[in-house]
Amino acid sequence: MKCTRCTEPAEVKLRAHNSAFCRECFVFFFQRRVERAITHEKMFSHDERILVAVSGGKDSLALWDALVLQGYDTIGFHLALGIGGYSLRSREKTEKFARDRGLRLEVHALTEDGLAVPDVIASTRRPACSACGTMKRHHFDRAALELGCAALATGHNLDDEAARLFGNVLHWQTEYLARQRPVMQPRHPKFVRKVKPLYLTGEFESATYAFMRGIDYVVEECPNAAGATQLAYKAVLDDLENRFPGTKLAFVREFTERASAAFALPEDRETTARSCEECGMPSFGALCSFCSLRAEVERRQAERAARAGAPAAPA
Amino acid sequence: MKCTRCTEPAEVKLRAHNSAFCRECFVFFFQRRVERAITHEKMFSHDERILVAVSGGKDSLALWDALVLQGYDTIGFHLALGIGGYSLRSREKTEKFARDRGLRLEVHALTEDGLAVPDVIASTRRPACSACGTMKRHHFDRAALELGCAALATGHNLDDEAARLFGNVLHWQTEYLARQRPVMQPRHPKFVRKVKPLYLTGEFESATYAFMRGIDYVVEECPNAAGATQLAYKAVLDDLENRFPGTKLAFVREFTERASAAFALPEDRETTARSCEECGMPSFGALCSFCSLRAEVERRQAERAARAGAPAAPA
Repeated sequence: MKCTRCTEPAEVKLRAHNSAFCRECFVFFFQRRVERAITHEKMFSHDERILVAVSGGKDSLALWDALVLQGYDTIGFHLALGIGGYSLRSREKTEKFARDRGLRLEVHALTEDGLAVPDVIASTRRPACSACGTMKRHHFDRAALELGCAALATGHNLDDEAARLFGNVLHWQTEYLARQRPVMQPRHPKFVRKVKPLYLTGEFESATYAFMRGIDYVVEECPNAAGATQLAYKAVLDDLENRFPGTKLAFVREFTERASAAFALPEDRETTARSCEECGMPSFGALCSFCSLRAEVERRQAERAARAGAPAAPA
Repeated sequence: MKCTRCTEPAEVKLRAHNSAFCRECFVFFFQRRVERAITHEKMFSHDERILVAVSGGKDSLALWDALVLQGYDTIGFHLALGIGGYSLRSREKTEKFARDRGLRLEVHALTEDGLAVPDVIASTRRPACSACGTMKRHHFDRAALELGCAALATGHNLDDEAARLFGNVLHWQTEYLARQRPVMQPRHPKFVRKVKPLYLTGEFESATYAFMRGIDYVVEECPNAAGATQLAYKAVLDDLENRFPGTKLAFVREFTERASAAFALPEDRETTARSCEECGMPSFGALCSFCSLRAEVERRQAERAARAGAPAAPA
């Protein structure tokens, strides 16, 4: 098997692209694909500062690496979720990546707010991924604003996007379909553009890139991750991809280019007019989703404490 | 297992509907679902004459049976495709069904036009299903017009519609998505409304109905049918349906109710202005698709005969 680009012996084969690459050419190919996604979708420019949300996994670290090599002005942001050893290892890998390369990394630990994901799960009925998503959105938005970034880049890859699109399509969740785009323009002056430069890059590609670039990443999945449904969708898409290479790429790319506009919401639906009374970030109601969640956790923890010691509580 | 409707012992379980039925109640359930699809989607009324396209399979015979029992004014139309024993058996079952019930059936045999499906495949490069589809559309349209019918009803079931929708969605074929509806209004005065009363009825349900109503149908599939792609889509959907009963129903129903409109074509794109110079049916060009196909078959057959040595006609 020879490299499609230089005809040297190839190390990796990409059936979806009908190509094979040697190490050097694969790294070139990967970075060019990321760059093309950024320019084609007008994600950001070299004049802008970008906040990169880095979990410590292959996708976000590969993305950060590629952006840095392409000369973008980046700051890494890691949200430490407090999910036991998994979160500790994720933070360590992220910090080591930044330290080794002399990159600026900001870390916020949910444990310091008393809002580690396990605390939230224990004291509310919110599903873990839902609560975690609320906290991520809040802290990513807040950090991007405070750090003067023009855009927030996340490592969502083609496999993530295809599975999400598949789920939304199976139930024709038209509001979610309207929001599934590689670039989401901000709906409020305090929000920044949200972009997914890897939306057409498969997880096999980002894992290969991380390996070839010597990036040490967290391999384990979040212990709370992906319920049966999402895994079933991924399995179905993997099966189709095996039989018809390029299925995921066509599914997500054609949606973005040809169908997504059909689901666009009217402009006025997209506007968030108010500010959260607690944190000042944009909000639909008096409190933003994050501050509502925090208030709920605090209230339930107080109730529990009262029941544990107070005369009113049952045995 | 008890009947959901009458609590007698149930004979059939429908996981997608979270229900089980005895024989009598299942027949009632099936017919009511067909009737609801007809009225909810405004397919046709009791004042109109309906042409039912009957292949001899479970779906079209079950549909015809249900329509007759509900008092609709129907004529059956069978297109004999000339595909060897499969077509002979299909015609026999269809004719017996009509004869036993005293129903009016019209039959047109493609063999009489020298256009049996195997002839067309042998003399053109058209895929079998594509050529067969062109001929079916032409003859169904023509028969509906000549027999004074207001609508043409076909037996497309939920499994067919889900697999077709899935294929169109995987590649975001927006023009095809725009045309995938349970009711297609005619785009020309010589066309009639096309309706699919079984679009929310699974093939297991129509097979069960046919069995319970004593309908003898052709079990074998068309030997040309369904390539690897379509079968892979059906397998994927069957797999999801097994894990999440009701998946197909939600997929097709929600598309119809919530998403289909997003793909609607502008009115002027839907108009067919001309008439075919050969057959007089509506046409985009000088000849309609059917007459073009026929001309191609005749031209190639003549060429072959010429090459074989004969001065004008084959032996």
